[in-house]
Amino acid sequence: MQNYKLTLCYEGSRYNGWQKQGNTRKTLQEKMESALSDVLGHPVEIAGSGRTDAGVHARMQVTNFRSDTEKAPAQILDELRRRLPEDIGADALEMADARFHARLSCKGKTYVYRIWNSGAPNIFERRVMAAMPGALDMDAMWAAAALLVGKHDFSAFSASRQTKKSTIRTLEALKIERLGDEVRCTLTGNGFLYNMARILVGTLVQVGRGERHPQEMAALLENGDRKQAGPAAPAQGLILWDVKY
Amino acid sequence: MQNYKLTLCYEGSRYNGWQKQGNTRKTLQEKMESALSDVLGHPVEIAGSGRTDAGVHARMQVTNFRSDTEKAPAQILDELRRRLPEDIGADALEMADARFHARLSCKGKTYVYRIWNSGAPNIFERRVMAAMPGALDMDAMWAAAALLVGKHDFSAFSASRQTKKSTIRTLEALKIERLGDEVRCTLTGNGFLYNMARILVGTLVQVGRGERHPQEMAALLENGDRKQAGPAAPAQGLILWDVKY
Repeated sequence: MQNYKLTLCYEGSRYNGWQKQGNTRKTLQEKMESALSDVLGHPVEIAGSGRTDAGVHARMQVTNFRSDTEKAPAQILDELRRRLPEDIGADALEMADARFHARLSCKGKTYVYRIWNSGAPNIFERRVMAAMPGALDMDAMWAAAALLVGKHDFSAFSASRQTKKSTIRTLEALKIERLGDEVRCTLTGNGFLYNMARILVGTLVQVGRGERHPQEMAALLENGDRKQAGPAAPAQGLILWDVKY
Repeated sequence: MQNYKLTLCYEGSRYNGWQKQGNTRKTLQEKMESALSDVLGHPVEIAGSGRTDAGVHARMQVTNFRSDTEKAPAQILDELRRRLPEDIGADALEMADARFHARLSCKGKTYVYRIWNSGAPNIFERRVMAAMPGALDMDAMWAAAALLVGKHDFSAFSASRQTKKSTIRTLEALKIERLGDEVRCTLTGNGFLYNMARILVGTLVQVGRGERHPQEMAALLENGDRKQAGPAAPAQGLILWDVKY
């Protein structure tokens, strides 16, 4: 069967995240498998580069699936677009090497977290930002971010899951910038633990509000205690931005 | 009674336009009057700079209303924000001169029309753009725009309304620019007739598609025949961008 690489984007607000859960069709994976099955005329299993949580968006999500269809990629893409709801976009479809796997072949990801830092609402982008009014000390956030970048055990910044897998990841970059009333955090790494991007941002926001000292980041990385880190920032501000192979 | 100037923005998708129609609460004016009455404790009548159609958005809509409240503007604004739905934003409130009237004092407006000119969907901005795939000849659109700018009788570009009022307006600028896959039309004028911005754009799109010659604009301005101009472009692409006093 031919392997296909399909690049998607989605506004995650209406979905229970990427990963299939039973047969609710309320997850992005189920929605995609159902639409692709309609187009291809056979059951389809789709793999994503990672599992975005309920409410999280994707500017770029890479997936792969297999099919023995005789339809050309351009035709599949066209028919798929006509079947997808308006909050899921199919950006590109190409034939892929048999060994390509959206998750296992993934070399790194970039997430963007958008904070709307104003008392006045941002009505046009409200679905893809988290509103957090009140002063945020950028210098303190930058100092904390500098301590988080690098190869570390990020256990403290991961929702507890019983697993024996490694919790060591390399956070290659953590950029925090002020763009008018928006504070945008861009996190690039070779992999992210469950909820890691949101807990990193939630903890950085505590630093920005002066509720926590930047230096505490070192201790959190050291002790790996989830309870001592901050809360996960709301899902709606998080966007899977880029996936690298 | 003190006169107040209130600056709003809204995503118009859910509303039957600005202007009150009976007591449905499905118009922006009713929504605003209802919220302001709650805050101020007395019935409020609000005037807008103009009447945006059903589905049209506003980045900036200026309004005014009168009240003898003893609440300070900052408090009114704060209480109003807590009562407004998430698709209406209250940006600023200030006391205004007694003679200020949002519509009658208005000196000019800018509308922006956003065309998404690609076969792939723009899922994040789909509510504030009109999708029009297919080639658009920018040179032809620029040539047509150049003929439309200036002081003209815009009857051909206005939905028929029985009125004896003047249909002469000055279109001060009509900028058309390509921003990646977006074609953005920015129309600035001292006033706009009913549906004028959307009919101008609808006609320009016909020119862009080669269905009509740019030179026809001169004849349309001359003969004033609505039936010979193009259709009104969809409401969801139109945004009231700026209001001048």
